[in-house]
Amino acid sequence: MLVERYAENPLIIPGDVPPSRDDFEVVGAFNAGATVFDDEILLLLRVAERPKDKESNEELAPILDPETGNIDYFRVSHGDPDLSVPDSRSFTYKGNRYLTSISHLRLARSKDGRRFSIDAEPTVFPEKEYETYGLEDPRITPLDGQFLISYKVVSQHGIGTGLLKTSDFVNFERQGIIFCPENIDVVLFPERINGKYYALTRPVPVYIGPRAVWIASSNDLIHWGNHVPLIGPRPGEFDGAKTGGGCVPIKTDRGWLEIYHGSDEQGCYSLAVALLDLNDPSRVIARAKGPLMEPEADYELQGFYGNVVFSCGAVADDKGNVVIYYGASDECTAGASTTIDAMLSTLE
Amino acid sequence: MLVERYAENPLIIPGDVPPSRDDFEVVGAFNAGATVFDDEILLLLRVAERPKDKESNEELAPILDPETGNIDYFRVSHGDPDLSVPDSRSFTYKGNRYLTSISHLRLARSKDGRRFSIDAEPTVFPEKEYETYGLEDPRITPLDGQFLISYKVVSQHGIGTGLLKTSDFVNFERQGIIFCPENIDVVLFPERINGKYYALTRPVPVYIGPRAVWIASSNDLIHWGNHVPLIGPRPGEFDGAKTGGGCVPIKTDRGWLEIYHGSDEQGCYSLAVALLDLNDPSRVIARAKGPLMEPEADYELQGFYGNVVFSCGAVADDKGNVVIYYGASDECTAGASTTIDAMLSTLE
Repeated sequence: MLVERYAENPLIIPGDVPPSRDDFEVVGAFNAGATVFDDEILLLLRVAERPKDKESNEELAPILDPETGNIDYFRVSHGDPDLSVPDSRSFTYKGNRYLTSISHLRLARSKDGRRFSIDAEPTVFPEKEYETYGLEDPRITPLDGQFLISYKVVSQHGIGTGLLKTSDFVNFERQGIIFCPENIDVVLFPERINGKYYALTRPVPVYIGPRAVWIASSNDLIHWGNHVPLIGPRPGEFDGAKTGGGCVPIKTDRGWLEIYHGSDEQGCYSLAVALLDLNDPSRVIARAKGPLMEPEADYELQGFYGNVVFSCGAVADDKGNVVIYYGASDECTAGASTTIDAMLSTLE
Repeated sequence: MLVERYAENPLIIPGDVPPSRDDFEVVGAFNAGATVFDDEILLLLRVAERPKDKESNEELAPILDPETGNIDYFRVSHGDPDLSVPDSRSFTYKGNRYLTSISHLRLARSKDGRRFSIDAEPTVFPEKEYETYGLEDPRITPLDGQFLISYKVVSQHGIGTGLLKTSDFVNFERQGIIFCPENIDVVLFPERINGKYYALTRPVPVYIGPRAVWIASSNDLIHWGNHVPLIGPRPGEFDGAKTGGGCVPIKTDRGWLEIYHGSDEQGCYSLAVALLDLNDPSRVIARAKGPLMEPEADYELQGFYGNVVFSCGAVADDKGNVVIYYGASDECTAGASTTIDAMLSTLE
């Protein structure tokens, strides 16, 4: 068995999370960054909320007003000819897409990694002009004595990647947009390699090119360059349609072990591993011949967007044990234990 | 009159350019970077070539093999069910898009800016893994005593932006990919501003967001960050669908004058200007209330892709006179004279 799902799964469901406002309901608590801090396992959840009072004859988008800090509602009546509703996650009006939910980041804390207590208030809330549609999918990288959090920033301008710094998980400093739209699933490496910082990125090409993992480097974490394609989809395989970075790379004797996600042509999201050169992570040593974990459990097969396992964070101990925290069906958070050896055994 | 087209237009047509191989024909000589060097006006043309021997019952893509340096042909028969041909510029096979032409960069030189002699050989030819489908749309920025050339790199991995350095237009040093896919129309500012380098970029968002000009900054020209949206499309206007950087910004007393392109909902590409703060170019002082130049002449209305004026370079003297070199209909190169004052008069 490559991974063992926690018996307590799902560990966190939307109903466990207090909404940030009385007129909001939480519809997702998923895609959490993970780390260890002060003897606790911290998950930084993406908490998706949606207005409760939506009428059946309208579409409604919650949007931050960065001037006031309030989230206002943008309403479009179903009779409006400029409205189109592709699915429950979004609608388009006059050619612009709006989201039906808005996400913030929220801490959950645990001593045993299985039972989490969830903070009553949002930890990082949308605030900037580039965050008006929300913050999503954080990855927490311990680096240079602090924690770096790469996260999706979503606004009418597009979906890019922002960077937060914190040393205490109380105060967070925004570092602006480090990758412009459309770039998601950005994961920073946990140490400098030959003096350089590295990040996995996931550009979203339009005219030519697959949705693949790229790698970039930086001298200061703010400015990034030397973009190189790294882990692309393999047509016909479990990761045949798209690939994207997942967890913060784990350093092993054999290389950097990256738990990434791949989706197939039917839209099923699985987890798998790739091994990158310790001294030059832009070199792939090996890819997994098959997935590490595919959607199997009920909560992975059904939910807000079913048939998805998607990880933004794992916790490794020094004995080679790894717990993967993952979003299931874009709705809840689950855990699964594995080992470095088990993951390495999947490599070609 | 805001601009005066050169009577000699078009200045350069595909037939003026010797192909790089006997079995190629030149189908485009357009979207040239422009600068002054050694008392000559230099245009660095995008030269698009296509195999001559294409059969009527097949599609053919010229693709660089970076191992050998050769351009090979990828052929698909029209009977193949996995083939789809959206237009003459590209086809898709098994879900991947291929280009029917491949571009390189070629110098044209002139004393008067109207009559150009074109180098017999390519100046910068596709060479790298990220250039297998060609090099396109260079912008030449004189900076720190040398010339920086930002250009589109096109390959099976996507369309990003590469950077070249040269001091003599003979030897060119590649600096890798500075903006990963999909990002085009990148223009570097010609001096540091408060110690920082700046670039206009044009991300191509997929899920949310317009095709708009952004700005980024750098300490070393290689690594870029602090991405901020800058000049977006204005629905219903001449630049209502897309905007993108054009010429290297011209420094004026009132601000950085940027000649950008905008397309409308019908796909017509015009040129217009925006004025950016001298000390903080991420601040737009004013936008043009109308276009500086719209397609009007025959060579702008008809050609490989008609109804397009698109500039990658202008040459300004110290008396406020400016010559805009521009691609017409994605096929040939033309020139038009204007002045700083005329351009400023279009501002709101």
